[in-house]
Amino acid sequence: MYSVGSPENISSLQNPRVKQLVKLRDRRPRDEAGVFLVEGYREIRRALEKNIPLRELYFSPEWFLGENEPALLAQAAAAGAALFELSREAFAKVAYRERPDGLLAVAPQWRRALAELKLCAAPFLLVVEAIEKPGNLGTILRSADAAGCDAVIVCDPVTDIFNPNVVRASTGVLFSVPLVVEESGKVLAWLRERRMRTIATTPAAEKIYHEVDLRGPLAVVMGSEQYGLSEFWLKNCDVPVRIPMAGQADSLNVAMASIITLFEAVRQRTGGAR
Amino acid sequence: MYSVGSPENISSLQNPRVKQLVKLRDRRPRDEAGVFLVEGYREIRRALEKNIPLRELYFSPEWFLGENEPALLAQAAAAGAALFELSREAFAKVAYRERPDGLLAVAPQWRRALAELKLCAAPFLLVVEAIEKPGNLGTILRSADAAGCDAVIVCDPVTDIFNPNVVRASTGVLFSVPLVVEESGKVLAWLRERRMRTIATTPAAEKIYHEVDLRGPLAVVMGSEQYGLSEFWLKNCDVPVRIPMAGQADSLNVAMASIITLFEAVRQRTGGAR
Repeated sequence: MYSVGSPENISSLQNPRVKQLVKLRDRRPRDEAGVFLVEGYREIRRALEKNIPLRELYFSPEWFLGENEPALLAQAAAAGAALFELSREAFAKVAYRERPDGLLAVAPQWRRALAELKLCAAPFLLVVEAIEKPGNLGTILRSADAAGCDAVIVCDPVTDIFNPNVVRASTGVLFSVPLVVEESGKVLAWLRERRMRTIATTPAAEKIYHEVDLRGPLAVVMGSEQYGLSEFWLKNCDVPVRIPMAGQADSLNVAMASIITLFEAVRQRTGGAR
Repeated sequence: MYSVGSPENISSLQNPRVKQLVKLRDRRPRDEAGVFLVEGYREIRRALEKNIPLRELYFSPEWFLGENEPALLAQAAAAGAALFELSREAFAKVAYRERPDGLLAVAPQWRRALAELKLCAAPFLLVVEAIEKPGNLGTILRSADAAGCDAVIVCDPVTDIFNPNVVRASTGVLFSVPLVVEESGKVLAWLRERRMRTIATTPAAEKIYHEVDLRGPLAVVMGSEQYGLSEFWLKNCDVPVRIPMAGQADSLNVAMASIITLFEAVRQRTGGAR
């Protein structure tokens, strides 16, 4: 039926593969195995589009929501993924989402170094510090993608970029936006070597974000949810800026502040006047 | 200990109040009772700050996360709320959140009509159509609050504004931003009577959102997540605009598009050049 050979069938909840998939929700087993989970049709399709070499693809037709799943399975198998068909109950156990759609893949983790980033003459980067909530990190990746950032650099991470909630909240952008995880000190040195201006948002700044020139080589730096920018970046960024806010003090979270700043940069970089 | 009289103690999971609190997660029982749930210290504090007359406040000290809860209970009691102390187990049953903090209030619903909105000479409104996800609606309310919108108008709602996830995602902004629920037709007629320009975002528009004059009496109109703007608003808005996007087509959701458009309006309305 699936024209993908004969996938192994799994119905036992005690099957070692089932147990391992559950374990991969946690960081340590993910890092030990060097893999992470990609759940859902949309995310798996995007991983395949970006040539992520999926190792395993677990599927359970009783959970399917659409009609394109067999084609996706065939595509994954052609790209080298091993397929496993799970019973309804077995899939319920391995599914991470509240509303599973019968598709769960295992992909290899990757690490990219700053030196590997290919940058144009006037790069546009987003640097985020120690973001705590996977959902926020995923949303920030989407914003960076929509704004056309050349790369996102995650400093001193609290949240694993391969957390299943990052994958989900990023709607697959994780597979396309170049992403580097590195210490703040090394990131700053690298940005300075490349003469990139750093703009950091903090409520204490005097200048308003749209009064500052956001054209040219630029890194927008965002702090963590709870603590805001660290002393390190407050002291070392070129221009601190603030976003004027009406209403209650905490209405803008870091994901919202990121998108406001990134799209003002886009506006200026595409010819809008300050 | 709480200097709030002697609250009734509830430990039975079969207690009618416990059962009713669970029911109030659903819209019909909420509407029948004319009330809604406000869970969590921050949200309840904000409701009290905005003089929302909480009817009941359920608390369970074993779940408390901080030290300010007794003061909050005293404040709620002074404002007329009936207090009920729940056992750990009973609170676990009524809590809606994944990580309860031992505080859950019942507040009366309200309805505000367009005619009740008090507007300045150059009002700045957000109009949202048929938003489906409570979390998005809550985030949009936060954005409108941060941008200083005079009111938010929800047209043809799919999501109840008193859904617990709206309350949570709005971080209490629900209690402060003037909010009206009304049919699109009536909203358009009302906006036209007041000579307010309507700017609506849609990917098909020619003009870019920051190329358009967003000063003066303004209503920013946003469509639903899945279907975008309805034919009605596409046909009847004064200026359709689009947000240029890099990356994958669906990187910006309605909450993200709202905040970009609202903050560009703020920028122009506070003196920034186009």
